[in-house]
Amino acid sequence: MTDKKLSTDSYKGVRDFYPEDMAIQRYIFQTWAKAAESFGFERYDASILEPSDLYKAKGAENEEMVNEQTYTFIDRGDREVTLRPEMTPTVARMVAGARHDLTFPLRWYSIPNLFRYERPQRGRLREHWQLNCDLYGADDVTADIEIVALAHQTLIDFGATADLFEVLINNRQEMAALYAAIGITDPEIVATITRLTDRKKKISAEEYRSGLIEILSDESLADNVIKIIEDGSGTNQLLEGLQSLGITNARIDRTIARGFDYYTGMIFELVDLHPDNNRSMLGGGRYDNLTSMFSGDAISGVGFGMGDVTMRDFLETHHLIPEYIRTTAPHVMVIPMEAEQNLYAEQVAMHIRKAGHKVAADIGTKKIGKKIGSASEKSCKFVVVIGEQEVQSGILTMKNLFTSEERTGSLGELMNFLDVE
Amino acid sequence: MTDKKLSTDSYKGVRDFYPEDMAIQRYIFQTWAKAAESFGFERYDASILEPSDLYKAKGAENEEMVNEQTYTFIDRGDREVTLRPEMTPTVARMVAGARHDLTFPLRWYSIPNLFRYERPQRGRLREHWQLNCDLYGADDVTADIEIVALAHQTLIDFGATADLFEVLINNRQEMAALYAAIGITDPEIVATITRLTDRKKKISAEEYRSGLIEILSDESLADNVIKIIEDGSGTNQLLEGLQSLGITNARIDRTIARGFDYYTGMIFELVDLHPDNNRSMLGGGRYDNLTSMFSGDAISGVGFGMGDVTMRDFLETHHLIPEYIRTTAPHVMVIPMEAEQNLYAEQVAMHIRKAGHKVAADIGTKKIGKKIGSASEKSCKFVVVIGEQEVQSGILTMKNLFTSEERTGSLGELMNFLDVE
Repeated sequence: MTDKKLSTDSYKGVRDFYPEDMAIQRYIFQTWAKAAESFGFERYDASILEPSDLYKAKGAENEEMVNEQTYTFIDRGDREVTLRPEMTPTVARMVAGARHDLTFPLRWYSIPNLFRYERPQRGRLREHWQLNCDLYGADDVTADIEIVALAHQTLIDFGATADLFEVLINNRQEMAALYAAIGITDPEIVATITRLTDRKKKISAEEYRSGLIEILSDESLADNVIKIIEDGSGTNQLLEGLQSLGITNARIDRTIARGFDYYTGMIFELVDLHPDNNRSMLGGGRYDNLTSMFSGDAISGVGFGMGDVTMRDFLETHHLIPEYIRTTAPHVMVIPMEAEQNLYAEQVAMHIRKAGHKVAADIGTKKIGKKIGSASEKSCKFVVVIGEQEVQSGILTMKNLFTSEERTGSLGELMNFLDVE
Repeated sequence: MTDKKLSTDSYKGVRDFYPEDMAIQRYIFQTWAKAAESFGFERYDASILEPSDLYKAKGAENEEMVNEQTYTFIDRGDREVTLRPEMTPTVARMVAGARHDLTFPLRWYSIPNLFRYERPQRGRLREHWQLNCDLYGADDVTADIEIVALAHQTLIDFGATADLFEVLINNRQEMAALYAAIGITDPEIVATITRLTDRKKKISAEEYRSGLIEILSDESLADNVIKIIEDGSGTNQLLEGLQSLGITNARIDRTIARGFDYYTGMIFELVDLHPDNNRSMLGGGRYDNLTSMFSGDAISGVGFGMGDVTMRDFLETHHLIPEYIRTTAPHVMVIPMEAEQNLYAEQVAMHIRKAGHKVAADIGTKKIGKKIGSASEKSCKFVVVIGEQEVQSGILTMKNLFTSEERTGSLGELMNFLDVE
């Protein structure tokens, strides 16, 4: 036993959720879940512990990522374990494992916590949560349209209006065709251009152009690429489909590249238009053969991921977090004047609770005035003060702290005072 | 890139939650949350990553536990990190860290996942979830009564009746007084007897008696201890308080010891009375100075923890999982006959969704009969089949798969057919 006192800080780069933060987190998760379920998506989950091989299977680049950017350790049974850094490999594992029992098209969503070993910075913590929605086994463009519509709906369900954000879409196959039309067909060169273009909004026009010239060794070809990239005038089946579903804040943006190499068709992002928070909030796209690392037939999919930190930043920037969700205190506080009335107060609380209310008894040792003050500070709506007289007579007084209205009567008589919200 | 195919198994000792299991898990969590909130408990959470010192602080025994029974590793910044094996040290850290901003008595609950490195066996996985409820800063017996009443209520809220389970209560201080009355006062001997008594239900009467004789080196003293332990006839303030709250399935059981040394007063368990599942489902008690490892004043508390695996075993044993929660499929399935009608089907789905229904469009490539079969298998209640004619006329047919009733009309006309549940 040591006398050294410990720090009360959490581990570096992760968050404690005190009730006021937890209330916001739950509001975000519940709204996400509601949006996904309204589209018929079913919820799944898995452990954060996964065999490290799951992340290394995709090749050397992934092996480096696992070694440098994830929490990976050897367990006592000599197994290499990783705290999941993303949900896609897990869901691929689960879909491949149960493929013969599953009905496609399959709509699945999850709200996992994900871990990355990286320097903590705004919006990039070591642990964060993410809404993951995926639609498997439907290759039609309608599936792409639906996924973008669902991403769009998650923001609408938080009360966002279409003028606050924008849906930017692109398509890897269309890009390949555009490049081919100006004579660029080597997939390696296309991939290198794509990686540079992904950073276009973060670098100067000059830097972007000289980067292209370096890749292509041809100034006029570089300028042709710039013409393709800067031409947002196009339309496509996806955009038309979205419009037919009433989504009007979508447009083609040829700079959208998405970091992940596994996207093969449509890719998209949702971008906050507020000048204080002008960044991508969500990204996704279509990928082929999700389950290539397992045996069995290829399964294609389209999906997106949306982080809790960027979601909360968006909601706070636009004042979209409703006040009512911040109250975590009980609706009714029963306040005994002295410890002798504590048990009676618990009995009164139990009675009120059975009618469906959230109720607590303040069985602390503070004076009555302080107890009422606490109830008021915590935004409890009703208080019932219990003294010796109340215990003897069974006649109680209930006060609405919001309106200062009071009622006196038996507990039974007071119950309908509570119901008038 | 390797061609070796990966296994689709999860990591050893943890669970995948496919939609049907996830639905049950969510039902358990939601019922837990509702019970805790009805008692005015506020929800908090924290990361599963904690500094290992948090678990080692309580002395050498804990250090051994951390080294042998937890997931502990060194991060790349040379910090020793542990995946939390229990929630109490985390909540102690959070309460101590914010003590000056918190109002006591404080009622907090959480539903964390916890990790233990142990051989997987029934009900003892490497990862499980737990409802943790704690009431801090109220020393009165009423707080103990309330915590037991809340634990009791969680089962009632699942539809359990009082004849299915039993509340067994004991008290460390009362035990000390009973031992003192027969001349046993050495706290070390009391602790040794307590540890033996904790195992009493798992060993034979003879084994228990000879264990006592070994500890006490006195046969008649051992028999006096047995008299104390086997006397369940007593009552106390806690039991009377529970009865006044309508809880009639509680009794004193002097064998209840609880493993954790940190309990100092009341201790209790809820036990399933079903012969197939006759075991403890939940345990808790009162502890002093929760926050001793941090600086600042002592904070006492009373609380309990309840695991998801034992909870699900209880619910399954007593057939308490309602059928309706198992349906994770959408309420309405819109079924295009050919890919040409996919987008129209999505438009119809979007319209129905805006009225608050869970709805999906089956945009797969299966034949119409198979699509209807799938919707039926998944327990979708309504289907709308969309062919070329429907797209052109806007006149749709909606079928209730449960009753075989059908309605034909415009989408607007069909909406109230959906509402009649």
